This record gives sequence, C-alpha cells and structure tokens, in this order.
Amino acid sequence: MPRRKKVSDLGGVQAVRWQDDACMLLDQRRLPEEEHYLRLEDSTSVAQAISDMVVRGAPAIGIAAAYGVALAVRESATGDQADLQSRLDRLAAARPTASNLVWAIRRVSAAMDRDGRDRFDAALAEARAIHNEDIAMNLTMGELGAELIAGPCSVVTHCNAGALATGGFGTALGVVRCGWARGKIQRVFAGETRPWQQGSRLTCWELARDEIPVTLLVDSAMAQLFRREHPQWLIVGADRVTANGDVATKIGTYSLAVLARQHGGRVMVVAPTSTLDVSTPDGDSVPIEHRSGDEIWAISGQPAGINGVAVDNPVFDITPAACVDALVTERGVIQHPDFEKISKLFSRDV
Amino acid sequence: MPRRKKVSDLGGVQAVRWQDDACMLLDQRRLPEEEHYLRLEDSTSVAQAISDMVVRGAPAIGIAAAYGVALAVRESATGDQADLQSRLDRLAAARPTASNLVWAIRRVSAAMDRDGRDRFDAALAEARAIHNEDIAMNLTMGELGAELIAGPCSVVTHCNAGALATGGFGTALGVVRCGWARGKIQRVFAGETRPWQQGSRLTCWELARDEIPVTLLVDSAMAQLFRREHPQWLIVGADRVTANGDVATKIGTYSLAVLARQHGGRVMVVAPTSTLDVSTPDGDSVPIEHRSGDEIWAISGQPAGINGVAVDNPVFDITPAACVDALVTERGVIQHPDFEKISKLFSRDV
Repeated sequence: MPRRKKVSDLGGVQAVRWQDDACMLLDQRRLPEEEHYLRLEDSTSVAQAISDMVVRGAPAIGIAAAYGVALAVRESATGDQADLQSRLDRLAAARPTASNLVWAIRRVSAAMDRDGRDRFDAALAEARAIHNEDIAMNLTMGELGAELIAGPCSVVTHCNAGALATGGFGTALGVVRCGWARGKIQRVFAGETRPWQQGSRLTCWELARDEIPVTLLVDSAMAQLFRREHPQWLIVGADRVTANGDVATKIGTYSLAVLARQHGGRVMVVAPTSTLDVSTPDGDSVPIEHRSGDEIWAISGQPAGINGVAVDNPVFDITPAACVDALVTERGVIQHPDFEKISKLFSRDV
Repeated sequence: MPRRKKVSDLGGVQAVRWQDDACMLLDQRRLPEEEHYLRLEDSTSVAQAISDMVVRGAPAIGIAAAYGVALAVRESATGDQADLQSRLDRLAAARPTASNLVWAIRRVSAAMDRDGRDRFDAALAEARAIHNEDIAMNLTMGELGAELIAGPCSVVTHCNAGALATGGFGTALGVVRCGWARGKIQRVFAGETRPWQQGSRLTCWELARDEIPVTLLVDSAMAQLFRREHPQWLIVGADRVTANGDVATKIGTYSLAVLARQHGGRVMVVAPTSTLDVSTPDGDSVPIEHRSGDEIWAISGQPAGINGVAVDNPVFDITPAACVDALVTERGVIQHPDFEKISKLFSRDV
C-alpha cells in the first residue's frame, strides 16, 4: 500500500496554461507516451486544437477557449467587430456538447466590453480568472464530494474528469483525490473509455502519478465488477447538466449509472455551475456530438472500415436525472437533482 | 436496402475444417484484413491455436478440439494411453470457460474406445459427426429463434456467435440470418467487443458478406441505443450454460442484458445443448478466464502498460438466468430458463 499523500501534494498536472503571450496545451492525444505541449498563438489554432482533442474535458475546453478569446481580440486589434465575431464563432463551434465552451466565450466577451481597459488585457485577465477559479472550485468540490463517501470503499470512474480535463486537480478525480487523502477510497476502477481511451491513457496516468491505487478494465467489464465487488460510488464529471438535472457526459456513463444503481451503488456527478445549462430543458435537447467512425475502426485491422458496414460513434450520452444520486457543484451538493433544486441553486446567486 | 437472400444462401464461411489429414483453421486474429488458413498437423498445435485464439467461439473450439483428439490418437499410434491422455489434457486446458471443449474431447474419446474400428478412424468420424451436427443444429436453432421475433425490428448482438464461432451458420447469427431472411430483422447493432474486437472484426465482416444491414458501435454506446431506439432483442451465444440457467458468455453480455431489460428489450441466448453444463450448479461456479492485460494496453499508446496501474481482463461474465428471456437450443426453446426446465430438457434424452 503506497503512502497516502496530503491533498496539497496531489494533482500537479496543468494541461492548459498561458505562457509568454500564447496558450500552451498539453497534447493529450500523445499521452501517456510523452508529455508534449503545443504553443498556440492564434484563436484559429485553439479552435482546431479543441476540435482535434488536443485538449478535452468540459472545464479545460472552457479555459482553453477563454484564452482563445484573448488571442482573437489580439488578432482583431483593429477593432473589426465582424472579424472578431467570426473568430469567436469558430471557437464556439469547435465541440458541440460541452457547455463550458460557450459559457467561457460569453464571460470573456462580456468582460472585455465592460470597462475602459485595453480589450486584450481585459480578456486575458478574465481568462486567467476563469482558470484560477476553476482550480479553486475543484478543491471545494473535491472536499464536498469526499464527504458523501462513507468509506473505506472502492469507486468507479469513467473517461477522465481529472486535472487533465480541468484547470487542475479535477472534478471527479478531485473527489477521488480528497477521498483517497482522507482514507475513504481504497481503490479506483477505471474504465478504458472507448473509442479514445481517456481512462487507460489519461486517468490511469494521472492517478498513478499520485500513487492512488487504480485498476483498469474494459468498459463492458464494469457490469460484472458492480455485481461482484459492489463499489460504493460511480464518480464522473459532466459536459453539460440541463435544467432538469439530466447529465450529458462521456459515452458509456449512462450504462455505468444504470449498472451502479442496479447493484446498490450510487452515482455522483461532479460539475461546476459553469457546466449547468438552465437554458436547455432536458438531456434529449442536448446536441450530441457524433465523431468519425474511423476512431472505432482504427483498431479493427481494417482502418478504412468494412464495405457495407455502417458505424455510429456518439461520444456523449445522457444520464437522466433520476439516475443521479448527488450533483456536486462548487456552490454545494444537490441530492437527487431536479428542475426545482437546480433553479434554487442558481437563485442564490441573484 | 439490399436484396434479401434466402437462408440457404447465407453464412457460407467455414472457420474449421478437416482437409488432407490435417485440421485447417481460419486465423481469426487476422480477420478482416485477410483470410488465412493455418494447417495444423498435430494436437499440440491445435491446443496452442485454441489458446492463442486462432479459433474462438465455444462450438468452433469444440469442433477444433474434436479434430485435435483425432490428431492426438494418430500421434499416440503406439497405443500409449498415458501419452494420449497428456495430449488430451493439454487440449482440454487450452481455454477454461468454454463448455464444448471438454464435451467434445469426451465424446470423441468415448467413440474411439467404443468399437473395434481403428481408433484414429473412429475418432475422426466422430469429430466429423460433431461438426456436421453443429451445422444442422444451428439451422434448427436459427429457425426456432427467429420464430420468437415479432418484427420487423432491430436487434443487438455482442461478440461473434456466427459462422466463425461454430461449424457454420452460427448460433446467435444463425437466428439473425433466419430473422433477416424472414423479413423480421431490419438491422443488427453490433458492439465492438473489447478487448478483442470480435464485433467489429468478425461479426461485421460476416454480416456484410451476407449483405445483412449492420451498424457498429463501441460497447458502451449500447445503453443509449437501448434507451432511444428500443431494439427488440439482444441475441447472443454462450460459452457455458449452468444447471440453473446462468450463462457464461463474452465479457459485456451481462451489461447488455441488464440494459436491454431496463428498456423493454428481451434477451435471447442461442446455445446447443453441448454448451449446457448441468454438472456446474450456477454461474458463480464457472471458472472465468482472465487474459493478459496487454490485450487492453495494446491500444493505449503505452503497450507495456503504465507503471503502478493494475489491470483486470476477465474475458467472460455471468448473466444470471433471471435476465434471460429465452434459451434457444436445438431441442427446443426454454422460456425463462431455470434448474427445473433445464433438467427436463435433458431428461427427454434418457
């Protein structure tokens, strides 16, 4: 059993950062093989990097897009509003499902229009604020989520909602880090997460760096794990939470949520309020990104696919609110989220 | 929409056959890229090929092992019983979960001891009989299973329980072939089936050859498919059915069974009685094969794995009898199988 570290010693990776007048992104397509940062000096490159999954995870996408807005402002220094808008539209269209993307673009845009400061300075300051707030929120959510865990127990996670998916520390893996540091979590079971292997490539890599015990399984093996080992919680992040509490998140999460509850486990979704989209009524109204079938075929021995075979590659699914036991936000925990409870969380703000 | 073929025109692939004094196996590790047959002239090679998954699928493993017994007899022509037994033991140990393996070895062994014929001739004749009976049973089960389908509808399958997994025509895909030919099945949704991609590599390949409409998805995307598209049946094969009706089959099947039933779908297991193992009381008594974690790591960008990360690679799971709506055998259909109904099926025999 490895020595149990303190919370402050955990989760040091930073996948997105501003450095020397550019947005630096850890190229997550090349993990765990190598840690390679891309230096992006214009907003079009940031949009492309988001689309190409150099960076992924709703909060990290939001932060990258925020820095992208600052770059767009710099490119449109002449003040051509139509040119700026087209750059922002390109950023917003880079991934259709993540709520934080549009949220971050709007927030930075509003900030630069607000005061008399230099628009680029204002945009960059707001992007940095979003980044710093994200890390602070993750620490808060980590503690709130860990409090829900009775422990000592094992937990299941899916995809990567870790430091790599956020400004740092992670949402779901933030809870895992706090739960581990507090002695409540003994082991994490991570699903591989086809077709992009965020589980094996990213979550396992992140947790191993922190010496948190983790076991990798293929996604479809989790059903038997729930039946035999009874992990106490499924802990996941979210790409968008709708007004009624439905959760759009990585493909395969809905499957795990059903299986967890079928076997006495509970489901925890860890998502900052920037992920909450109260303008979308429910999960079935969320645009689900379908990516190329090549991502699936790549490992089949026939990368171009088999003639006559159709392929469907949705990369998110909807977990209905009825399957969610706890929604952990930086403003507090909502047990069994629904429209009313989510509205109330927001009304505290106004 | 492709022209709908007749049953007799479907499923022509033969993955196992006896030819020119040797056992020929279609190397399924190299599909769909190339159709390459291995010529195996001794029983040790057959055992190794089964272990290495040149051939897979419980009935096909049984047939290959049956031919392997004939080869073992030829190698032990001196009549050294201890030598023969060690060859048979090696065959029996090649894969631990498939019931047909041991069943086929016992049946061929009994046949060659039965009469005064040359032991090799008797063994080969029995292996050929097992092979031919398997094809005949698949045609019978195909029709019985198709009768259960109301249609027109879509269905889900997992792994490959097709011509490639049997002597020919297939168990689950035998039902699919008959259901398609009868106009009851409109489309098949095939799960990729990690970590070995039997779905994308083998099932899609087989169905495309027969021009049966098939859509490939990653395993974890099936939950959302069940919620949105409501496929009528999950149709799968089995590696072993225990006395109480529990089913040991490809990892991920249990997940799909839970999800199908959660969304109003039904679960059909198609398995000849050679797959029924009444000497094993229930699923939790079945030895589950765990294969090397390398099979999972291979696609992670870090084929040797990540230091400090454990991996669990069970390749079968248990679907409790309570999740099975219909068990289709060559002797008839058992609705909601249980100990009593399975005993009764066998007692018809004696």
